[in-house]
Amino acid sequence: MYSKEGNKMEELIERVKKFRDDREWTQFHSPENLAKSIVIESVELLENFQWNNKYDKEKVEEELADVMNYCLLLADKLEIDPIENIHRKIDKNEKKYPIEKSKGNSKKYTEF
Amino acid sequence: MYSKEGNKMEELIERVKKFRDDREWTQFHSPENLAKSIVIESVELLENFQWNNKYDKEKVEEELADVMNYCLLLADKLEIDPIENIHRKIDKNEKKYPIEKSKGNSKKYTEF
Amino acid sequence: MYSKEGNKMEELIERVKKFRDDREWTQFHSPENLAKSIVIESVELLENFQWNNKYDKEKVEEELADVMNYCLLLADKLEIDPIENIHRKIDKNEKKYPIEKSKGNSKKYTEF
Amino acid sequence: MYSKEGNKMEELIERVKKFRDDREWTQFHSPENLAKSIVIESVELLENFQWNNKYDKEKVEEELADVMNYCLLLADKLEIDPIENIHRKIDKNEKKYPIEKSKGNSKKYTEF
Repeated sequence: MYSKEGNKMEELIERVKKFRDDREWTQFHSPENLAKSIVIESVELLENFQWNNKYDKEKVEEELADVMNYCLLLADKLEIDPIENIHRKIDKNEKKYPIEKSKGNSKKYTEF
Repeated sequence: MYSKEGNKMEELIERVKKFRDDREWTQFHSPENLAKSIVIESVELLENFQWNNKYDKEKVEEELADVMNYCLLLADKLEIDPIENIHRKIDKNEKKYPIEKSKGNSKKYTEF
Repeated sequence: MYSKEGNKMEELIERVKKFRDDREWTQFHSPENLAKSIVIESVELLENFQWNNKYDKEKVEEELADVMNYCLLLADKLEIDPIENIHRKIDKNEKKYPIEKSKGNSKKYTEF
Repeated sequence: MYSKEGNKMEELIERVKKFRDDREWTQFHSPENLAKSIVIESVELLENFQWNNKYDKEKVEEELADVMNYCLLLADKLEIDPIENIHRKIDKNEKKYPIEKSKGNSKKYTEF
């Protein structure tokens, strides 16, 4: 739909940055303000589950998009590749959460 | 580094899902629990800016990865393509935030 | 235990302020930083419920105390009486949530 | 204004509980749902500081009242005295943050 070839993430990032730059919003996008914005959007996501589990899928999807949009803006601000950054964290998580210790339980690694 | 060709996002999602499935964690990953987890990680990101702007770039990057990791898990749970989902939201944001009204200011669209 | 007479809140506020002043922490307590701190502590409270409902009552109580402690510090910074401030909000909520419309349901007033 | 004598906190708690009971909202007030609600309101407080420090004092006061209101409801649910609970936490904080180590700096006790 939005992309024909393989490199969908780079195309998306270009669009996210263009949206920001067309509005001259870089001036507001300090890492701290972006961190606050990620928190704010993630709690708007949580609001869909405040009193029960019956959620509106469309609203949840929109709030998820808002969270991820700000995440991409923060990655751009930090000058990192968001996908490589997640891979690096999974490398670490594989050590913190070895399969044999974490299989089937939700314990934090500090509780092993 | 982690990927040679174009379709980096799909490779990452496969890895994120394998990490989860190897540990049998799907049972904990209701949309609500994932929403709480996104909030929790995003606030760990914010903690880097609690008292001032002097942040540790490496810690910020790790927390950002944690937020995005849970976002990908929620997208998988909702059976949506995370990149298409962000594009759809930007389509809406382009209408909510026309360039001429939002250029150079941080007003919410409800304040225009 | 901590108080013999009626005015327990004022005694508590005096203690909270003395704790802060003994450590010369007013310099860090801008309204914004206190707002971030309230968020951070409230999410530490939420962490007790990340994957299930089986919570450790003592931990929950401690995190609740941390949230309220920062709330008292913010009220002090804003130079308001925290108890009067809650009464004023309940005055408003009584109008926003009339009993006949809100009885037995968790709808937001914007959905009536 | 709202209270003539000393025991203002107990009067407030009675009002908060009456507001809840008149609307039959106890059914929604599991500790988990109240924790989510405290987070949601605290982030509405943070929203006043999303892009800058110029905040609307009245809005900040209202959001602070919402956070504290839910805190009182959670304390009631846990069957604890909110004021005694804060005193107990300050007892602990006095040990975690001795004046000589914490004076004039915002370090976490884990960093001493």
